[in-house]
Amino acid sequence: MSSQNPVFIPGPSNIPERLRRAIDVPTIDHRSDSFAELFRPLFAGVRKVMKSSDAEVIFFPATGTAGWEAAITNTLSPGDRVLAARHGMFSQRWIALCRRHGLDVQTIEAPWGAGCPVDAMGEALTRDVGHRIKAVLVTHNETATGVRSDVAEVRHALDAARHPALLFVDGVSSIASMDFRMNEWGVDLAVTGSQKGFMLPAGLAILGVSQKAVAAMDTATCPRCYLDLRDMLMANAKGGYPYTPPVNLLYGLGTSLEMLDEEGLENVFARHQRIAEGVRRAVAAWGLELCARSPDLYSDTVSAIVVPDGFDGTKIVTHAAEKYGTAFGVGLGEVAGKVFRIGHLGSLTDVMALAGLACAEMAMADLGLPVRLGSGVAAAQEHFSRTGPKALSQAA
Amino acid sequence: MSSQNPVFIPGPSNIPERLRRAIDVPTIDHRSDSFAELFRPLFAGVRKVMKSSDAEVIFFPATGTAGWEAAITNTLSPGDRVLAARHGMFSQRWIALCRRHGLDVQTIEAPWGAGCPVDAMGEALTRDVGHRIKAVLVTHNETATGVRSDVAEVRHALDAARHPALLFVDGVSSIASMDFRMNEWGVDLAVTGSQKGFMLPAGLAILGVSQKAVAAMDTATCPRCYLDLRDMLMANAKGGYPYTPPVNLLYGLGTSLEMLDEEGLENVFARHQRIAEGVRRAVAAWGLELCARSPDLYSDTVSAIVVPDGFDGTKIVTHAAEKYGTAFGVGLGEVAGKVFRIGHLGSLTDVMALAGLACAEMAMADLGLPVRLGSGVAAAQEHFSRTGPKALSQAA
Amino acid sequence: MSSQNPVFIPGPSNIPERLRRAIDVPTIDHRSDSFAELFRPLFAGVRKVMKSSDAEVIFFPATGTAGWEAAITNTLSPGDRVLAARHGMFSQRWIALCRRHGLDVQTIEAPWGAGCPVDAMGEALTRDVGHRIKAVLVTHNETATGVRSDVAEVRHALDAARHPALLFVDGVSSIASMDFRMNEWGVDLAVTGSQKGFMLPAGLAILGVSQKAVAAMDTATCPRCYLDLRDMLMANAKGGYPYTPPVNLLYGLGTSLEMLDEEGLENVFARHQRIAEGVRRAVAAWGLELCARSPDLYSDTVSAIVVPDGFDGTKIVTHAAEKYGTAFGVGLGEVAGKVFRIGHLGSLTDVMALAGLACAEMAMADLGLPVRLGSGVAAAQEHFSRTGPKALSQAA
Amino acid sequence: MSSQNPVFIPGPSNIPERLRRAIDVPTIDHRSDSFAELFRPLFAGVRKVMKSSDAEVIFFPATGTAGWEAAITNTLSPGDRVLAARHGMFSQRWIALCRRHGLDVQTIEAPWGAGCPVDAMGEALTRDVGHRIKAVLVTHNETATGVRSDVAEVRHALDAARHPALLFVDGVSSIASMDFRMNEWGVDLAVTGSQKGFMLPAGLAILGVSQKAVAAMDTATCPRCYLDLRDMLMANAKGGYPYTPPVNLLYGLGTSLEMLDEEGLENVFARHQRIAEGVRRAVAAWGLELCARSPDLYSDTVSAIVVPDGFDGTKIVTHAAEKYGTAFGVGLGEVAGKVFRIGHLGSLTDVMALAGLACAEMAMADLGLPVRLGSGVAAAQEHFSRTGPKALSQAA
Repeated sequence: MSSQNPVFIPGPSNIPERLRRAIDVPTIDHRSDSFAELFRPLFAGVRKVMKSSDAEVIFFPATGTAGWEAAITNTLSPGDRVLAARHGMFSQRWIALCRRHGLDVQTIEAPWGAGCPVDAMGEALTRDVGHRIKAVLVTHNETATGVRSDVAEVRHALDAARHPALLFVDGVSSIASMDFRMNEWGVDLAVTGSQKGFMLPAGLAILGVSQKAVAAMDTATCPRCYLDLRDMLMANAKGGYPYTPPVNLLYGLGTSLEMLDEEGLENVFARHQRIAEGVRRAVAAWGLELCARSPDLYSDTVSAIVVPDGFDGTKIVTHAAEKYGTAFGVGLGEVAGKVFRIGHLGSLTDVMALAGLACAEMAMADLGLPVRLGSGVAAAQEHFSRTGPKALSQAA
Repeated sequence: MSSQNPVFIPGPSNIPERLRRAIDVPTIDHRSDSFAELFRPLFAGVRKVMKSSDAEVIFFPATGTAGWEAAITNTLSPGDRVLAARHGMFSQRWIALCRRHGLDVQTIEAPWGAGCPVDAMGEALTRDVGHRIKAVLVTHNETATGVRSDVAEVRHALDAARHPALLFVDGVSSIASMDFRMNEWGVDLAVTGSQKGFMLPAGLAILGVSQKAVAAMDTATCPRCYLDLRDMLMANAKGGYPYTPPVNLLYGLGTSLEMLDEEGLENVFARHQRIAEGVRRAVAAWGLELCARSPDLYSDTVSAIVVPDGFDGTKIVTHAAEKYGTAFGVGLGEVAGKVFRIGHLGSLTDVMALAGLACAEMAMADLGLPVRLGSGVAAAQEHFSRTGPKALSQAA
Repeated sequence: MSSQNPVFIPGPSNIPERLRRAIDVPTIDHRSDSFAELFRPLFAGVRKVMKSSDAEVIFFPATGTAGWEAAITNTLSPGDRVLAARHGMFSQRWIALCRRHGLDVQTIEAPWGAGCPVDAMGEALTRDVGHRIKAVLVTHNETATGVRSDVAEVRHALDAARHPALLFVDGVSSIASMDFRMNEWGVDLAVTGSQKGFMLPAGLAILGVSQKAVAAMDTATCPRCYLDLRDMLMANAKGGYPYTPPVNLLYGLGTSLEMLDEEGLENVFARHQRIAEGVRRAVAAWGLELCARSPDLYSDTVSAIVVPDGFDGTKIVTHAAEKYGTAFGVGLGEVAGKVFRIGHLGSLTDVMALAGLACAEMAMADLGLPVRLGSGVAAAQEHFSRTGPKALSQAA
Repeated sequence: MSSQNPVFIPGPSNIPERLRRAIDVPTIDHRSDSFAELFRPLFAGVRKVMKSSDAEVIFFPATGTAGWEAAITNTLSPGDRVLAARHGMFSQRWIALCRRHGLDVQTIEAPWGAGCPVDAMGEALTRDVGHRIKAVLVTHNETATGVRSDVAEVRHALDAARHPALLFVDGVSSIASMDFRMNEWGVDLAVTGSQKGFMLPAGLAILGVSQKAVAAMDTATCPRCYLDLRDMLMANAKGGYPYTPPVNLLYGLGTSLEMLDEEGLENVFARHQRIAEGVRRAVAAWGLELCARSPDLYSDTVSAIVVPDGFDGTKIVTHAAEKYGTAFGVGLGEVAGKVFRIGHLGSLTDVMALAGLACAEMAMADLGLPVRLGSGVAAAQEHFSRTGPKALSQAA
């Protein structure tokens, strides 16, 4: 694997130079005023990215999985019912996690490649007249299938059923790359991580917590300690942490928020959309299809590409790594072997994306797939050229 | 706070140049062979540092607190009894954590400044003929008081009582800086972090788990998911992680282990001892005393220094930070205000230690304490000069 | 300009991660043993790259231009005659430099795009029966035109004429990327820099000096001081410098030599040749031609591509920088506007090269040149796929 | 040598974190607008530091020695007379350099430890009624002896003699650390480097050139090419360089200028003065004397300390390096063995300075010198405590 080629995995994303430098800091006393000064602006910065006016923002020294766990253990009690759809690896894992904590998960099955089945969820909510469902779990962007779900529609379903359940959203591979509207969608708990749209190494689980979710903490009896939101909120209020914080990543997050702000959040989303569309045109030019079943479901951060029947998609990933030193994502779970994935999130330029497409099509051609060299690249080039790409303005 | 002065907090410790560079890496695919190659040697490396021949070694993307939590949730069930002493902030917190998980903590109180009360523990174990106590918790090095406890004696007490309880040890501020003998002491679960003796930023909870503790996982019913050892062992066996690993810290750990090996573990311990002794001689020259009640309890990684009655020790820390840009540790919990702390662990040279002592005595003198300028420095210099200090051999 | 896209200028080349880290060092005393230890192995390392058994190797804190100047001022005297060909920007500049120092330059004109006119040189040498010509200047790789000259043939011409003149070679953009045989070709003074094949930032002028050239120093009367080879050789012999050395670049050079050695010098040359051939096939697919007039002249480090008559090649470079944040080289001197240049030297992977080709063809198409999108990329992909590219093995 | 201890050599100085990061940049096209944007503000920034309103500012990829050479070769012709004092290693070297270029150097001898002998210079200028002296050379801060000379007085001597000679000043170890007034003192050519007050690695020779000196270029016939100011001024005017510039150091210089500006130039000078005074008090407490003969000559960037007769001062430096991994400066030239030097320039805090003093006194005591441990440290502490030191405000 070359350290000079960009990675095309759906996270961790490529760390831009400015963030490389921002996290390369000597040891700083996390009980000092210097730390408090660095720490304080992060809350408002993340709220802006999540489009929330009043969420509590939390940074656990952990990953997105810990974020999911914190979401449920801090707000629910064993035996509580949650409603969730299973339509990809990450929605499936969240369900498993709930079960470990003794929650009663009402699961709606949907095909891998479909979005969150909002109609079925609506029906389930409507039928739940006793409001046994305490929380609804939605995976905004299924990283395994490259599928974006419609969180606003889930909110509409909740509202239509006049259901008081909390709405929890996994935004790990969407937040800071795709539009996310915590307030407008009435999201009660949003989970993300440092290593995707925020362009940092893994190591921060980032949560946005609505005041309604904060209130739910009082009655939640799931045991938790490291991931206890109350401890964290109390310590944060004094500018500190209940334990040693990951100072360098928090520094980096400050710079990441600056970069997002300088580019403009809507421009960041537009850039992701534009590059994703270039990738999708390349896929079409290769004669292949996405795992996502319809255009409204297409993710702007990752594309899962279906390989021909009988071909093992994992080979493309292994071959690209071995021969060309370039990383793509394998298929996971139900779609293992059936897809390979191109991550196109975070700090990416058109030129970097073209490098990935050129490599992917070489790898496929090497392995005998009927992909014409240059075809996908040309389709993406045509799109990038026409839609006025601009390079990221990250000065070194 | 100056970014050029070393820190003298009891962790995170100063990151040496070689580790600064080791963790400054671009994104690497954590599902690639490159990652697996980097990852694999870490297990044996940590076993060597812990002096264990067969422990399972685990790296959670988290901090030491998560390590404590993983220790108990993976091996115990709600209602299980654990035996613990409360004699400092960190032993106290571990007890609180156990209670959150519904454990029945049998607490032995001891003064802050004393070590783990082995006799009282022995008695408790002897009395526990029904073996209700499932685990004994020991804080090897109380970071709040600068006290080292005698883990070997606790093992003797367990053996003398023929008690089968698991022995869990918090080695967060000792492992890789002070001698730790997992095999010899019969430790079942040792917990540490990346940010102390391993000289890295915070972000890795590192566990050594005996085969007896591994066996205890089968019956443990405490709910856990992010910190589940079974998931981790299973994923690690395949060279991977159950979620996104903190790749750059794992890289850094590899280099940290190399550095410890190059210097020689016993030399590392001797260096810590020698520098700690220099600090202690300075404290004596200042006419002050350590919080640790007797020389056998003195920690080689942190010294908690008792300030004169009626004087608020926190002021020293604040003043040194504001006027001289240098970080020391405040007193915590019962000894808040009564002590201030000098951390002297990790990658430290004599010259760095003298800088800290010179700063501390200036700060004390500034605040009117009867400390003669140069007195502590001279006492430490005499010790360093005589005991043949050598600079760390970390080539840049 | 994006800091995330590779550059495709003919130097400075892209700095690999390992070298980025190697030069990121704190201040080291350049009069210490540590410095001497780092410094000493560099001489043999560079000799190996230059394929010399006995050259003195010199590192000036300067650039290649200073290397040219040191070459002549240390070995010649005002009024001395030198023989040189003018067939590109860099050969032209060297001639100008000689004239500034009062040398009598006998210039042979050759077209820009041609190589060093060996026949004409041979004739001039043969005619020079009085041996007034003291030195022959050859530009091994004309960076302005992408032309490699045949140094061995110049040596044959010298030998055929039994002419004792010194042979000076500008290897700035060839050494460490293309085969260079100081001993075999009888080169007396070879000049290069840190920022091309050695993959470092600019800042080191590197010279290989034959013992014959060393002997010439005794009689040379051109004034020099900063660039005096005698001062340098004397100081180097004691492990030091006559003034403050650029310690971090010398550290970096040590690592650069390690990297070249690990990959194997012949493999490095083969990689450059293979990637250069991919670029050339792309150029052919675009329907364009190289400035270099015949395949034997093709440079493996830079390709100067002739744009259609009436089109200003500089526009391609400006456009690629502005719209795609990617740097290519403009035409210089006589070929300004007539060519644009793709640098393909140093630490480059196939995937990076494809990114550059994809960008160049987008830029050309944007500007209305009759270049089909994907065509050049496909030609290079076909070549890379077939010739078994492997990623650089630079572990992060 | 430890990479964690600060260095106490009189340059290169310790590179602050912020500058470490500023120069750690990927390759940037030096012919791009990005480079021009970075480059342009540097001129005014350096003028401000030199206190000049209209000097041309030049950055050669070289060191201070090259700066001296550029000063004379660009403004003088072989045979021209220059007036210079020899009172230390660096003034001596400049004289030697002039002689290499055929200048007629009228040398005034002064003791090493004395300043520039202004009276004798005044007499020489007054006697030179034919104005054969074309330039007067002054070493503002003799790094070898720790002596500051009075440039203003030299200007007065020139004015008093109504002498039109150019005034050239070596400010390598003073500019950006000690007050330097190019306009007020009528300096025609000021020379410095990146590695002292500018806190960067070596690699930039920085010149301030008065319009009078610019005018002198037209007639100067000393041959020069790499260091030709005309080529440089012409290329700079277009935002570029006549050859490959050291882009990363120029980036760093931009940040260095920002740091100096943020702290405030007068505050930077005051900090140097205050820390230097602490060092001098330590020297007095050790019972030793400075090489500088009187307080008005004391340098604020380096102290040369005279060791007892018969003792070899070099041993202190060697011993401190070997036993304590800390770098000091040896004596040079006439004072080799007779002094050792403590550099205290650039980005230094009180705490760092105390570390150096503590180390130096340990080293002296180890070697049997009658220096009481802690004595020098205490004297400096007293001074630092009383004069209200503040840590450098360099946020990490």
